[in-house]
Amino acid sequence: MTLSLKGIIPPVITPLINNRELDTKGLTQLIRHLIDGGVHGLFVLGTTGEGPGLGYKIRKELIKRVCDQVDHQIPVLVGVTDTSFENTLSIAEYAREQGADAAVIAPPYYFPISDGEMMGYIEHLSDALPLPFVMYNMPSHTKMHLSLSVIERCRELGALGIKDSSGDAAYCYSLIDKFKDYPEFSVITGTELYLPETVLYGGHGAVAGGANIFPRLFVALYDAAVNHDLDTINTLREHLIKIENTIYNVDQNPSRYIKSIKCAVSVLGICNDYVVHPHRKFTGLQRQQIEIAVKTLLDEIKITVRPCNL
Amino acid sequence: MTLSLKGIIPPVITPLINNRELDTKGLTQLIRHLIDGGVHGLFVLGTTGEGPGLGYKIRKELIKRVCDQVDHQIPVLVGVTDTSFENTLSIAEYAREQGADAAVIAPPYYFPISDGEMMGYIEHLSDALPLPFVMYNMPSHTKMHLSLSVIERCRELGALGIKDSSGDAAYCYSLIDKFKDYPEFSVITGTELYLPETVLYGGHGAVAGGANIFPRLFVALYDAAVNHDLDTINTLREHLIKIENTIYNVDQNPSRYIKSIKCAVSVLGICNDYVVHPHRKFTGLQRQQIEIAVKTLLDEIKITVRPCNL
Amino acid sequence: MTLSLKGIIPPVITPLINNRELDTKGLTQLIRHLIDGGVHGLFVLGTTGEGPGLGYKIRKELIKRVCDQVDHQIPVLVGVTDTSFENTLSIAEYAREQGADAAVIAPPYYFPISDGEMMGYIEHLSDALPLPFVMYNMPSHTKMHLSLSVIERCRELGALGIKDSSGDAAYCYSLIDKFKDYPEFSVITGTELYLPETVLYGGHGAVAGGANIFPRLFVALYDAAVNHDLDTINTLREHLIKIENTIYNVDQNPSRYIKSIKCAVSVLGICNDYVVHPHRKFTGLQRQQIEIAVKTLLDEIKITVRPCNL
Amino acid sequence: MTLSLKGIIPPVITPLINNRELDTKGLTQLIRHLIDGGVHGLFVLGTTGEGPGLGYKIRKELIKRVCDQVDHQIPVLVGVTDTSFENTLSIAEYAREQGADAAVIAPPYYFPISDGEMMGYIEHLSDALPLPFVMYNMPSHTKMHLSLSVIERCRELGALGIKDSSGDAAYCYSLIDKFKDYPEFSVITGTELYLPETVLYGGHGAVAGGANIFPRLFVALYDAAVNHDLDTINTLREHLIKIENTIYNVDQNPSRYIKSIKCAVSVLGICNDYVVHPHRKFTGLQRQQIEIAVKTLLDEIKITVRPCNL
Repeated sequence: MTLSLKGIIPPVITPLINNRELDTKGLTQLIRHLIDGGVHGLFVLGTTGEGPGLGYKIRKELIKRVCDQVDHQIPVLVGVTDTSFENTLSIAEYAREQGADAAVIAPPYYFPISDGEMMGYIEHLSDALPLPFVMYNMPSHTKMHLSLSVIERCRELGALGIKDSSGDAAYCYSLIDKFKDYPEFSVITGTELYLPETVLYGGHGAVAGGANIFPRLFVALYDAAVNHDLDTINTLREHLIKIENTIYNVDQNPSRYIKSIKCAVSVLGICNDYVVHPHRKFTGLQRQQIEIAVKTLLDEIKITVRPCNL
Repeated sequence: MTLSLKGIIPPVITPLINNRELDTKGLTQLIRHLIDGGVHGLFVLGTTGEGPGLGYKIRKELIKRVCDQVDHQIPVLVGVTDTSFENTLSIAEYAREQGADAAVIAPPYYFPISDGEMMGYIEHLSDALPLPFVMYNMPSHTKMHLSLSVIERCRELGALGIKDSSGDAAYCYSLIDKFKDYPEFSVITGTELYLPETVLYGGHGAVAGGANIFPRLFVALYDAAVNHDLDTINTLREHLIKIENTIYNVDQNPSRYIKSIKCAVSVLGICNDYVVHPHRKFTGLQRQQIEIAVKTLLDEIKITVRPCNL
Repeated sequence: MTLSLKGIIPPVITPLINNRELDTKGLTQLIRHLIDGGVHGLFVLGTTGEGPGLGYKIRKELIKRVCDQVDHQIPVLVGVTDTSFENTLSIAEYAREQGADAAVIAPPYYFPISDGEMMGYIEHLSDALPLPFVMYNMPSHTKMHLSLSVIERCRELGALGIKDSSGDAAYCYSLIDKFKDYPEFSVITGTELYLPETVLYGGHGAVAGGANIFPRLFVALYDAAVNHDLDTINTLREHLIKIENTIYNVDQNPSRYIKSIKCAVSVLGICNDYVVHPHRKFTGLQRQQIEIAVKTLLDEIKITVRPCNL
Repeated sequence: MTLSLKGIIPPVITPLINNRELDTKGLTQLIRHLIDGGVHGLFVLGTTGEGPGLGYKIRKELIKRVCDQVDHQIPVLVGVTDTSFENTLSIAEYAREQGADAAVIAPPYYFPISDGEMMGYIEHLSDALPLPFVMYNMPSHTKMHLSLSVIERCRELGALGIKDSSGDAAYCYSLIDKFKDYPEFSVITGTELYLPETVLYGGHGAVAGGANIFPRLFVALYDAAVNHDLDTINTLREHLIKIENTIYNVDQNPSRYIKSIKCAVSVLGICNDYVVHPHRKFTGLQRQQIEIAVKTLLDEIKITVRPCNL
């Protein structure tokens, strides 16, 4: 039986205490917040989850705790890519043992590689991987924009789908078109603002960072897109744009998405917002701006769809 | 007493058997080949050493064996940067215990970061690092071209020097100019073809991949530059250009330098040329081309400067 | 009375004979084809119109003929940007004399310039321009992605709108959001595949190259978007994707869009498909592929919306 | 008899009054300053000459005046590339009539083109050009880094040489190596700081913007390189680095080189420093900084090589 990936799959932030230690209470509350919010899956140790920035001890603890808590209610996807092939396999094996549903695979991000080298890599990796896998296109971080041919080869090798975080809508539409005869192959956008059109045009959902903060908002937007309900889409999209213009806009560093989301979730009282090096969490004025933004959004979203338990 | 970095410091390839295991006999022969060749230091686990592609077990074994064999005859520099701060510190600590002389630090290559974030990162890292450190500018792999201000901050924080592999000669000249009043701060080019002008204009040497194959050639070229001997420079540079046009030119993948150097060293009978994923070693026609190139170069270089023991 | 820009505004190709001479008969037929097709405006001498590639004699002849034939039935926009400020003003003045409705302004594309320099440029230009103007964001050709601040300054200086050909949907959505309180300021996508979502989310239309071939298809898609008719949108979008996958896909040169559109229009018997240097028109197999693609599309589009007079 | 290009060929600035009109008196003094300074050729209407930013009337007046004044004492090269093929040919014909020695050809900079398209372009252009021609590699402005294959094809078609302004020293060295058996094919760097190594390694000279200010300094540096006089090279290079750190460093806009050079030449009393749109000349504090820099450099350079008539 094949795993079907669709809907809202938040790239789960990793709650931390003091840059080093897992905030286990915060993590439990966060996962409950997300499941109560109706999300369709979880993606841990992705970019928003600061996966590559964490030591392996903490990565393992996180995988174990999330898998235990979720207990197969929804699929758990684990970012496993490391620049070392061995480390990738080893964390994937651990994830399998803990009950994770799939591994998320990006190019091994240190060495620039060609399409041919990427295909060879996936051939070897898919052979050895103990889990089903999903591809992850993240050129801003991996330096490689996965071509349609590479993705096609990955599908042949068993990939369940592709999460595209390139920000290139035309590329995402090409993926939808290319794989329209393989409806079980999921095309999922990593640009949350592209969620409605991705679904309207035949895609399967979004890995939406903002769903860490307001899961119900994103689930409602997904539902509206599935139902072709344009009025609701337009109403809910306004909130997403406001999130973009306020929460994601207190800093111009490339790391602002991660820090903003963690800070906003912390403002909601769910977990701590420490981040690992090379990032630094928001404090002072920046945190205040996010507090105001979250409060305003809570008021405005109330009418249509509220975050859970809040 | 401060470590002084200058001369030819090869980015040592990592001899492997079957993509996984250290070729220990090959490694011993390689280190002997380099020391006999007169190199002034060794840089292990860099890009050419496939550092980020190796598992930590093999990285540790390599560090231990190299430090043991070198036994402080020349400085051993170890590439320690990992996307995880903890892993970076942990391998640095291991390197210190084995007797390594310095850690080589690049930006933590997964997350795009700003100059300010990089400075903050180095502030924290330099505080915790158990070893002296050298900066490593490698924008093609790390996505970050270290600005002069970042390097200046690193120098203040204790950096011994900078290895620049940007390929941007003007930037390297700016480094030399900026730090000319700090002669103990080493400016070392990672573009082997820029060795003579880097030294002629006040720089300190080169991390030259080709020195894995022909260490004496590079040492002789360094000496010629130090001695302002233009005739010898021009003669020896011809060999470097030939290496570029032949050995480094059998493939157009971005990984060709690593594979070419490993193949050529293997052709010399020194060690195996397996590479780790995502790369694949040269075989068939490509290996034959390198065999011919190495043979031709051996004949031509003979008159002026031969590789060691060959 | 302010000119209102919305709907489908084809970037009109420039019919030529023998790379040098205007195909006047073809031009007349093309303009009739477009007006009969229901387009809402014409944009001549843009990128698709090979504007910067044409000599000024031919550019003037084209402007005159198009303005005469259109005779104010729909707005005529003229691409006037030249690397020389004087030439820009001089062709704009000519366009005004012939009755053109607006000038289209891009950054002066040879010199890389900063945002501040671009703002200064527009301040001087808008002062001297004899015509209303529309901004044109075309970073792949001009090397400059116009920032929201630059566009805001242009709006203050009188710009009627912005045509965005960056391919960056998120940027286009930011434009829509930023200028939502200025409904008379038009946000028009230059990526034809983004037409529906641009309009659904509050934008004003598209400069769609494919509308040279199938104007009614694009007008119908625009109408469907205005009417929030998702079923029709999805049906018509299939044709756009087919155009992308066939007509625009016979060659991988960056110039393929221009050559493909010209060839397809020529296959329809409307005008010649010569192109100016540095491009070369399709012949042989490539033309055959486009013939087949056009024929197939004509058959398929028939059911929903046919090109005019065909 | 073939034109031989070597030595210092300044990219001559275009003296202007009030952004529009040629500063004819200033131009006469500038050309005298350059010829007295011993330069080996002149390149007018290049990037530093703001060629693409000028109207054709002024370009023609400049060509005529420069050719008349120079009267074949040294070669005059004219930048003729326009995005329109016709305009390129027409200004080249004018240049020939006035007695110019060669046309300088860059890619037609608006449309991104492939190598194959560039080769086709040069085939057609070289057929029709009434003058010998030199290639101009300027990727920061034209978006195209001319490949070695394209340059080889240009050489076959009659190109006299290549001026490389890519800033990529390794590429320039590849050109020198590739064409070493064609000594009459000139490899000239457009990065003035690379002048010594370019000549030491077999190249032919430099198109040095700073030679507008201090022609004798650059000629002396060229002579030192030809004579393999490393001590003099190192002494004179210090002045170039000082120019870089002071005169070229009062602003961070990409246009700073043009504005700085014009301002410095104006400070020397040679001509006005107006620039055409989209640039703006330095005033106030920026001009003061350049005044100080020029004065300091005049004092320092005095000992070794002074600018002419000063």
